[in-house]
Amino acid sequence: MRTSSQLSAVVGVVVFAAGTSVLLGRRAPERLQVPSGDLPHFTASGKLQRPLDWQSWVMVGASLGLTYDSTRPAPVAGASPRTFHTIFVQPWAYRHVQETGEFAENTMFILAMSDASQDADPARGGTYEGERMLAEIHLKKKDLSASGWGFYAFGGGDSAAMIPANASCYDCHTRNGDFDQVFTQFYPPLRHLEQTRTP
Amino acid sequence: MRTSSQLSAVVGVVVFAAGTSVLLGRRAPERLQVPSGDLPHFTASGKLQRPLDWQSWVMVGASLGLTYDSTRPAPVAGASPRTFHTIFVQPWAYRHVQETGEFAENTMFILAMSDASQDADPARGGTYEGERMLAEIHLKKKDLSASGWGFYAFGGGDSAAMIPANASCYDCHTRNGDFDQVFTQFYPPLRHLEQTRTP
Repeated sequence: MRTSSQLSAVVGVVVFAAGTSVLLGRRAPERLQVPSGDLPHFTASGKLQRPLDWQSWVMVGASLGLTYDSTRPAPVAGASPRTFHTIFVQPWAYRHVQETGEFAENTMFILAMSDASQDADPARGGTYEGERMLAEIHLKKKDLSASGWGFYAFGGGDSAAMIPANASCYDCHTRNGDFDQVFTQFYPPLRHLEQTRTP
Repeated sequence: MRTSSQLSAVVGVVVFAAGTSVLLGRRAPERLQVPSGDLPHFTASGKLQRPLDWQSWVMVGASLGLTYDSTRPAPVAGASPRTFHTIFVQPWAYRHVQETGEFAENTMFILAMSDASQDADPARGGTYEGERMLAEIHLKKKDLSASGWGFYAFGGGDSAAMIPANASCYDCHTRNGDFDQVFTQFYPPLRHLEQTRTP
């Protein structure tokens, strides 16, 4: 166990350091602590493996019942008025974008969904999150598609194939994501990023 | 800058290690990386200082318009149907409770509030978080009160005095918090903790 964990840590360092050599000089001790679980891992057939500890990642935005089209259901399942969406990103990727103004390779945004609950005491009004389910991952990796990103929809499985690059989610994010195809307009701590989409 | 940061790191290690010596043998490298900013700091007059990087902490629960009493406004300002609450805890404190089943001394829960927004494209339904404001901190520290916790309400200031221990928030959390005076019943990744309140 110890050996495996040490090996993973080394893999993490190598992959991450490749994209942040400039930063390494400044805050080396923190930078070298990228846990392997905070990087994307793939099966032999190229499916993205489900990260394990994503609920401890940085939560950049919560929403309730958010939909992108009033005339039909959102492409993401579960966008009912009673569904919370919470978006998580790896801590190292969050620090990277705050310090450099760019999303690093291997950045993963996780869309989690939970039913809006209201039954537990002492709640007397409003709604809170039920159990969270990992629904989708948006991964930045330049070989995945022309956009430089890939979408993965997880059901209950441990891994997911990439959604084909001609699916509507890619086009929608390119046209509507305020920053580098990400909906930073919905994420309080990322709203300051300079807008990159064409109005 | 470097010297100050190194000094802070040492302070962090000392305070944290005192409560987790059993764990240190198992995962020492991570345990020694508690940034000073992830511990409570006080002014000379005993006010709790506002943490700076709390939006990168672990978000344990989101809610919209949550209130605890249907007959009057909640004791926390802003509990309107259009206010998101998001609750953050230090990453080291989150790992500690997941590994030991107990909240460590110096654990801080931050209640952030944000207006429910709905104007940014491509939103066509539902609401998302506006700007987040740090509203309250719930700090575990045994000398603060008989309950072992202290509440601090932040306005726009950089520090806040503790709310007196006879205020209703203490009694409400003692009676209604599922685990150690914390409303874990509203927090998906902490709901598994063994209930400690008297039914």
